[in-house]
Amino acid sequence: MSFYEPIFIVYADIVKQNIKQMLAKANKNNVVLRPHFKTHQSIEIGNIFKDFGISKITVSSLEMAYFFANNSWNDITIAFPINFKNTKQINALAKKIRLNIIISTIESINFIAELSNINFLIEIDTGYNRTGFSHNNFNDIEASIKEINKNNKFIGFLNHSGNTYSANNTDKIITIYNSSKEKLQELQTKFTKYKPIISVGDTPSCSIIENFEGINEIRPGNFVYYDLMQYNLGVCTEKQIGAVLYAPIIAMYPERNQMVIHAGAVHLSKEYISYKGKKCYGLISKTNKTGIEIIDGVYISSLSQEHGIITFHNNKITEFKLYETIAIIPVHSCLTANLMKHQQEIL
Amino acid sequence: MSFYEPIFIVYADIVKQNIKQMLAKANKNNVVLRPHFKTHQSIEIGNIFKDFGISKITVSSLEMAYFFANNSWNDITIAFPINFKNTKQINALAKKIRLNIIISTIESINFIAELSNINFLIEIDTGYNRTGFSHNNFNDIEASIKEINKNNKFIGFLNHSGNTYSANNTDKIITIYNSSKEKLQELQTKFTKYKPIISVGDTPSCSIIENFEGINEIRPGNFVYYDLMQYNLGVCTEKQIGAVLYAPIIAMYPERNQMVIHAGAVHLSKEYISYKGKKCYGLISKTNKTGIEIIDGVYISSLSQEHGIITFHNNKITEFKLYETIAIIPVHSCLTANLMKHQQEIL
Repeated sequence: MSFYEPIFIVYADIVKQNIKQMLAKANKNNVVLRPHFKTHQSIEIGNIFKDFGISKITVSSLEMAYFFANNSWNDITIAFPINFKNTKQINALAKKIRLNIIISTIESINFIAELSNINFLIEIDTGYNRTGFSHNNFNDIEASIKEINKNNKFIGFLNHSGNTYSANNTDKIITIYNSSKEKLQELQTKFTKYKPIISVGDTPSCSIIENFEGINEIRPGNFVYYDLMQYNLGVCTEKQIGAVLYAPIIAMYPERNQMVIHAGAVHLSKEYISYKGKKCYGLISKTNKTGIEIIDGVYISSLSQEHGIITFHNNKITEFKLYETIAIIPVHSCLTANLMKHQQEIL
Repeated sequence: MSFYEPIFIVYADIVKQNIKQMLAKANKNNVVLRPHFKTHQSIEIGNIFKDFGISKITVSSLEMAYFFANNSWNDITIAFPINFKNTKQINALAKKIRLNIIISTIESINFIAELSNINFLIEIDTGYNRTGFSHNNFNDIEASIKEINKNNKFIGFLNHSGNTYSANNTDKIITIYNSSKEKLQELQTKFTKYKPIISVGDTPSCSIIENFEGINEIRPGNFVYYDLMQYNLGVCTEKQIGAVLYAPIIAMYPERNQMVIHAGAVHLSKEYISYKGKKCYGLISKTNKTGIEIIDGVYISSLSQEHGIITFHNNKITEFKLYETIAIIPVHSCLTANLMKHQQEIL
């Protein structure tokens, strides 16, 4: 290992298993699996998807769309309200690949005239309250469809139920999924003459729901790696966690039941969950070539730029040695993968 | 502007003013200013320091030390407990430049024998409880000095009072500074025969304290840009904030008094402060070529990977337009600068 520590480790077998499982579910339900590539942003992981026959993908910025288009992906949905003032770059990309973009706010219709031959989905806010037209704002939705269809093509409705990430049990995730689907189906019925598809997206729903009746497309991203947040939600098992951060222990303080690792906010980001009533920035495992085994009662209690403090609620600190490398299960793998995209190793 | 949005903007005049002021204070007190370059990690900003005659710097990883050594900096302190197992890389760097490293935990002494001709500082924990020898652990400190002086050179004591970042007023910062200094001076007296220097480091103390009597070196980093955390602490004024994130507004939801910007956790990181009792991931300003003017009652209330939601506690949303670029004052500029190091513009 070079001195470029820490390093982001991907367990290829687990990643393949996660993809296989999600794809089997999509196929069984006859829905398109259009995975969100913002999670990994990696050509190599993209190639694993390709080996499974995946050809349609989702990204979250125009820059990321260009990145994957330049690496032979040619059916891309940007599920993010990109700045329509970048007319030249959007039109140029649409000449090269099948490009699908979204409109999320009524004021954007004033900028559509400059775009052409692009497929549009209308983003619907079904309760997350981040972006999208309110599901019952029929007037603005209709005005948008008409404006889109002048030079471009309206193809359907899209949502992201990001509120499932803060659900505290799987029943709540199912409730959110069903309520969102109902709202999208109401729109599909109302605007049936345009034959709109319905595209939904979050990993919690896509992992929990078995029956996707009435849905045309799913766009989960995080499921490829999962992480502590999903594990905590009950959405994945420990054995499905497909990526970790390997980091060396750089200081031992047994007298305060703590040790310090070289892994900080610049590696893990600062997302946290609650763990035994405390802020937790990651759990740990011994390193292992095939996956992780979470050690109970041990967690990252604090993160600064380069340091992470690990606190033990038991006496297991004696099982660790200075400069040993340990595996950190990130709270939000998308953010960790983004920070580590140039220091990644696939096992 | 390309489609590589958002972009990190540095106000060169403010940066110069911040450096000038800190350097004047260091000179007046006859202490060495050894700025921490982890904040900016930028050759260009480094050159501004160089123009002020700065030649000694601080970094927070071996990788960063190599980066600056390869760009003509030749007196570098790594104020981070690096992995001593990287013997080859540490020794090679010490042959090229004057390298100062730290020891922060007694177990590290078993790895010193492989290193040679390196200056060592002993990191002392004066109350932050992150890394360093406890200030009254004289036995371990003495054992370390002896081990260091076999093939290397012990030059002094170093601390980082990171607990000043969570002080809630400037009096508290002064109390922490004085208490830390006292502990370091006690060590200096006890080990006087080795003529140890005292090196201290945090931006809050270095900004607030006027009299550095008894200190040999200061290592602030954040002061070059400052940020919302420092502003909130009362450590800097609005006019001293030297870097912001420019980001476009990508959706308007006046009906819920919110708008959405293209700036998420992958640009700003997820550090937050409390603002009017709510979690706040950044404040905003209109863009301006010479600095910022914080708009009261408007804040980033939520951040996901690429989206930021801005909430208004007033009716100023009407003053903003879709796709307009606004300036975001980051909560922690070090983390934002790290994320944006390849999308930076100096005004």
